[in-house]
Amino acid sequence: MNNLLAKRVLSNDTSDLNEIFKNSANPANISFAGGFPDSQLFPAEGLQQAYQNAIQTDGQSIFQYASTQGLPALREKLAQRMASHADVAVSANNIMLTQGGQQAIDLVAKLLLNHGDAMVVEGPTYMGALAAFDTYEPTYYEVPVEDDGMNLRMLRKTLQAHPEIKLIYTIPDFHNPTGTTMSIRKRKALVALANQYNVIVLEDSPYRDLRYSGVTLPAIKHFDTEGRVIFISSFSKILSPALRTGWLVADDQLMTPLCGLKSAIDVQSPNVTLAAIDQYLAHHNIDQHIATINAAYRVKRDAMLTAMDQYFPATVSYTRPAGGFFIWVTLPAGIDAQQLLTDVVLPQDHVAYVPANCQFASRQVKNAFRLNFTSLDPATITTGIARLGKRLTAICSTPKPAVQLS
Amino acid sequence: MNNLLAKRVLSNDTSDLNEIFKNSANPANISFAGGFPDSQLFPAEGLQQAYQNAIQTDGQSIFQYASTQGLPALREKLAQRMASHADVAVSANNIMLTQGGQQAIDLVAKLLLNHGDAMVVEGPTYMGALAAFDTYEPTYYEVPVEDDGMNLRMLRKTLQAHPEIKLIYTIPDFHNPTGTTMSIRKRKALVALANQYNVIVLEDSPYRDLRYSGVTLPAIKHFDTEGRVIFISSFSKILSPALRTGWLVADDQLMTPLCGLKSAIDVQSPNVTLAAIDQYLAHHNIDQHIATINAAYRVKRDAMLTAMDQYFPATVSYTRPAGGFFIWVTLPAGIDAQQLLTDVVLPQDHVAYVPANCQFASRQVKNAFRLNFTSLDPATITTGIARLGKRLTAICSTPKPAVQLS
Repeated sequence: MNNLLAKRVLSNDTSDLNEIFKNSANPANISFAGGFPDSQLFPAEGLQQAYQNAIQTDGQSIFQYASTQGLPALREKLAQRMASHADVAVSANNIMLTQGGQQAIDLVAKLLLNHGDAMVVEGPTYMGALAAFDTYEPTYYEVPVEDDGMNLRMLRKTLQAHPEIKLIYTIPDFHNPTGTTMSIRKRKALVALANQYNVIVLEDSPYRDLRYSGVTLPAIKHFDTEGRVIFISSFSKILSPALRTGWLVADDQLMTPLCGLKSAIDVQSPNVTLAAIDQYLAHHNIDQHIATINAAYRVKRDAMLTAMDQYFPATVSYTRPAGGFFIWVTLPAGIDAQQLLTDVVLPQDHVAYVPANCQFASRQVKNAFRLNFTSLDPATITTGIARLGKRLTAICSTPKPAVQLS
Repeated sequence: MNNLLAKRVLSNDTSDLNEIFKNSANPANISFAGGFPDSQLFPAEGLQQAYQNAIQTDGQSIFQYASTQGLPALREKLAQRMASHADVAVSANNIMLTQGGQQAIDLVAKLLLNHGDAMVVEGPTYMGALAAFDTYEPTYYEVPVEDDGMNLRMLRKTLQAHPEIKLIYTIPDFHNPTGTTMSIRKRKALVALANQYNVIVLEDSPYRDLRYSGVTLPAIKHFDTEGRVIFISSFSKILSPALRTGWLVADDQLMTPLCGLKSAIDVQSPNVTLAAIDQYLAHHNIDQHIATINAAYRVKRDAMLTAMDQYFPATVSYTRPAGGFFIWVTLPAGIDAQQLLTDVVLPQDHVAYVPANCQFASRQVKNAFRLNFTSLDPATITTGIARLGKRLTAICSTPKPAVQLS
């Protein structure tokens, strides 16, 4: 029956990645692969109370169909939060509640991309965003990420060479997978480029509140002068991913068709969940909760970096993120991180990470991988990094590496 | 910025329909337009308890990321329900939990339809399904619905003439919008045609448990011999639409790519909601709840049919559904139901319905409309139908109709 499947499905082979995640879920392994929050930090009691309050307050009506754009009271609160936490002045009418940040990405792709349409992604980038974009079969142009965000000289050249580009996808805050943050200068310059070349910027910022040092920067959307920036964030990392609730900020001319698409995709998000989140925000100080999370994640990040400093060989480099979930590790050229993982690190060291290739639209970079530091406790992090470090030391000092050069 | 939108968005103008729904939501009007369950019938207490039980039972872990296919325990219960209530033998591995039935429709469209691919829809059909399909820009072939389901002679001719057809979308049980049910003979014959012409059948059955007379028929999926039928249903009509939880039944070869697409669209459905539904099913007799709903909806349907028998002129015909949410009304040829609605019925009679044209892929049929009987109380139904009937009597007896002939 394969002859009946759409081309977007046939070209989308993620079986390698599925295999890695399946193996990394084995409790015998120490997995740095998933981008999971720490289960111990979910405010379970507060959320349980919030569900109760929501149903108690709204009664029968909470269970009826509601608006596609999502619960107005929660959008009002998010509008205030966008002002106080992202320096973005926006009304509730310009906010849509979505099924996590992921659905917001899918919606924007659906809004803009015809088969073959051109877009820019960072290299590397969030593999889930690539999975969403892939189903619209775009033409990708990849721009490298530097310590202070996207390489804008390369971006300008790319936009000049390809005036057909419609969309730039970026993760400015504690970038997935590199952990780097885009500078204010680059945020401004990115908006100027978007204006000049008539493109939409999709700013994906699920980690922006998870800062462990330094000060929060204004969102790229703050600098938007022409309604070209669509901002996305999510409750997944600051409250719970099982709520599947994110939000999207867009100007009117884009919000109207986005609501039409959301309606066709799933009618609306679950009203009970949205009302529960609204109650949680009304009766709990989420910023205090985020401060608690951040204190715990700072310890975990430090544990990972300390262990890496101790156990990783000098020929291996890595980022030192000021927040977020991830550290990006670059191996000496010629080492294939995926092969290393499946041949040695997973079966012998019982450690998992996400290899580079599936995090590049080009699938070309192989000598790097992503580590997550939020889901495990500091002692387990140290144990896993020690094992991984010893393996990397052995690999990097072997004149003829045990794994095949790519 | 319109030049940046995808073609699927630009071609999708639903502003007329949005206007109708906006006006019909005005509490001064009696609206038969929406397909809403009766808010008074939601088992609010049971669901409140179910959320509590779910969080109490699973603790912190309920708030973590979970499987894309959805909570295994709930899928197990649905597998049993598919056997007992739809005569379909299926394992939990062949069930996926979705954001209402709507997301299941979108997923199947995304699985199969390249731009321009051919598919069959019933005429009329569920307008939300058309909205979902529209975004994949298919070529539609429309087959009329009769009292016992799709006209299979016309379907066969259509499949013969267009061997490129990939998909047949049908609503066999208490069809939206006509309320008719496909006979057993036609269910069997439809599967035989699908086998012969190598197409997938999408069986959308959100109303099948809402039967007010007669006996439940086996699903089309029951007769499936080659894994060609994808079955969809939903908790929206039997429990609550605000849970946004439906399910999809498909054989392995289709389930695997469907999970890949679901992951790219929204990662997974909200685990807290799925666990709450699972707890509801564990601790409450949902069939008893459905019997309560059905008793109430039977009274409403009877109130509407009785009023129609009394107030509608003889030149207007309508269906007498044995279940579901809707009655379909056919006006004398030449009367445009949409124009009648916006010019007269809504502003003067303060009554709303959904006109035919947006419920046909061809948008060609104008002299018909859909009435919903579940959301209002019997007295209001009678009042609204009396007003509508008087207007129709006046229109149909006017030699030169007040509304323009199309």
